[in-house]
Amino acid sequence: MPADLAVLVYMSHLQDVLQLRVRYSETDQMGTFYNSRALEWFECGRTELMRRKLSLSYAELEARGVFLPLVEAHLEFQGGARYDDLLAIATTVASSGRARLRFDVQINQHSTGKAVVRGYTVHAFAAAGGKPIRPPAWFLELMDKAANAATP
Amino acid sequence: MPADLAVLVYMSHLQDVLQLRVRYSETDQMGTFYNSRALEWFECGRTELMRRKLSLSYAELEARGVFLPLVEAHLEFQGGARYDDLLAIATTVASSGRARLRFDVQINQHSTGKAVVRGYTVHAFAAAGGKPIRPPAWFLELMDKAANAATP
Amino acid sequence: MPADLAVLVYMSHLQDVLQLRVRYSETDQMGTFYNSRALEWFECGRTELMRRKLSLSYAELEARGVFLPLVEAHLEFQGGARYDDLLAIATTVASSGRARLRFDVQINQHSTGKAVVRGYTVHAFAAAGGKPIRPPAWFLELMDKAANAATP
Amino acid sequence: MPADLAVLVYMSHLQDVLQLRVRYSETDQMGTFYNSRALEWFECGRTELMRRKLSLSYAELEARGVFLPLVEAHLEFQGGARYDDLLAIATTVASSGRARLRFDVQINQHSTGKAVVRGYTVHAFAAAGGKPIRPPAWFLELMDKAANAATP
Repeated sequence: MPADLAVLVYMSHLQDVLQLRVRYSETDQMGTFYNSRALEWFECGRTELMRRKLSLSYAELEARGVFLPLVEAHLEFQGGARYDDLLAIATTVASSGRARLRFDVQINQHSTGKAVVRGYTVHAFAAAGGKPIRPPAWFLELMDKAANAATP
Repeated sequence: MPADLAVLVYMSHLQDVLQLRVRYSETDQMGTFYNSRALEWFECGRTELMRRKLSLSYAELEARGVFLPLVEAHLEFQGGARYDDLLAIATTVASSGRARLRFDVQINQHSTGKAVVRGYTVHAFAAAGGKPIRPPAWFLELMDKAANAATP
Repeated sequence: MPADLAVLVYMSHLQDVLQLRVRYSETDQMGTFYNSRALEWFECGRTELMRRKLSLSYAELEARGVFLPLVEAHLEFQGGARYDDLLAIATTVASSGRARLRFDVQINQHSTGKAVVRGYTVHAFAAAGGKPIRPPAWFLELMDKAANAATP
Repeated sequence: MPADLAVLVYMSHLQDVLQLRVRYSETDQMGTFYNSRALEWFECGRTELMRRKLSLSYAELEARGVFLPLVEAHLEFQGGARYDDLLAIATTVASSGRARLRFDVQINQHSTGKAVVRGYTVHAFAAAGGKPIRPPAWFLELMDKAANAATP
């Protein structure tokens, strides 16, 4: 098994939960959140996962010239969420083949545990201009270290 | 084959293309559109499809007490789009089992035809409070009429 | 001086500071936040001010049939803010004549103190359908209590 | 009177009206549009004004290295607008002192003429990195030509 693929398999141990309140600007006239906001919450989830679990914020990753553009997203809407509801966003980073990162997300109502949205996003590795690149070795090492730290 | 399912199969003939420009507010610091905007463009596509091809705007549908909440969405990001780029949003309404509507969407750059995003949204039928309902007979008849008009 | 106006004058003592990170979805291709996001951050500021200082969330206020629609807003853009920047949103609630609430907001970079946006929003009191109402006595009493608690 | 200020005074003759429908994503649970959307509609208004009346799209202006960052905005909310309402956005470009552009906007319901929002945005001239620049001579000449063409 190639070294970098092994690393990606480890990554499934990396999980983080973020709490976030629904903004008024995220609701719509149906009285729940507008569907596209879920993708913005997914972004909040993976941003905090990277900061807390990889010790490398996505902002720093971009500063080093590595971008993670979205190539695919899937969403299942399971229940409503109103303005000011406190949500729990559970994000797990996992492999999706070579040169792809996949974040799986489950969003629930924090107080009741009721499911709100679940889905995933798949990301490529790219340089500043959008040109595809191989995942940098130092990034894979960072993942490796984080995954080992997270393993029980 | 039950009558309403037959109607839903017909619906695959119903297609509409909407032109729309990327707003500055829809871009992000990577220089392309932010991913969640695609779901908002999908909404624009199905809104105009309903107005133009079903002779019943979604606003009127809600006014009659029928809501179409999103239950599932899928997106594949195929290429970039910058501020002010003119996009062509091709939307097709199709069956996705009983009591579900599915809109398939392909967004391209209008001038070059380059693919930008493709995906679909699946919608349930619901009453004002969100309670699931069966598709109203008059709505299915409207669909039937529109599909027949669209058939060559 | 009428009782309720006196109460509104007290309110200028009510201030709260909220920390919030810039989302990727809030940036634009100029590399800073898109201008309309500031109004969404203003909302976050007043939401937390009400929860923390009035002991009555805005969600609860609406649940009691009292709405605070925006009637006026002003914004001065003072400096940039990039994705993941940590912002400090200082919000003060004050009087803006009878039957109006005014929230003054100053947003700064948390780490450097550099000014980002300042402005204010003015809100009317309305019933569920949007019809203007007088500020309820119990709300003014709540404000009064909070202002007294905040006074040194 | 300096030449470029004279040009800016002419500009008050430049007006454009854009029609635009309220998106579902722009509504909120109060049943009207969320307040920050007005700033996005203001952007749509000035984008089309520039394309149609100056014969230079804002995208082309940026491609030539000239940016117009927002420095100030003011909004008065005059009435509601629901999903799918057709709005008329009337935008006028005017002077706001040297090296500033000001766009005045009035948004009304297209069918009834009922006022929805009015306000203005003030813009600086900047280079790609955000550094303030003087308005380029060729831009002022373009404005001059457009204003003369618009004068009755």
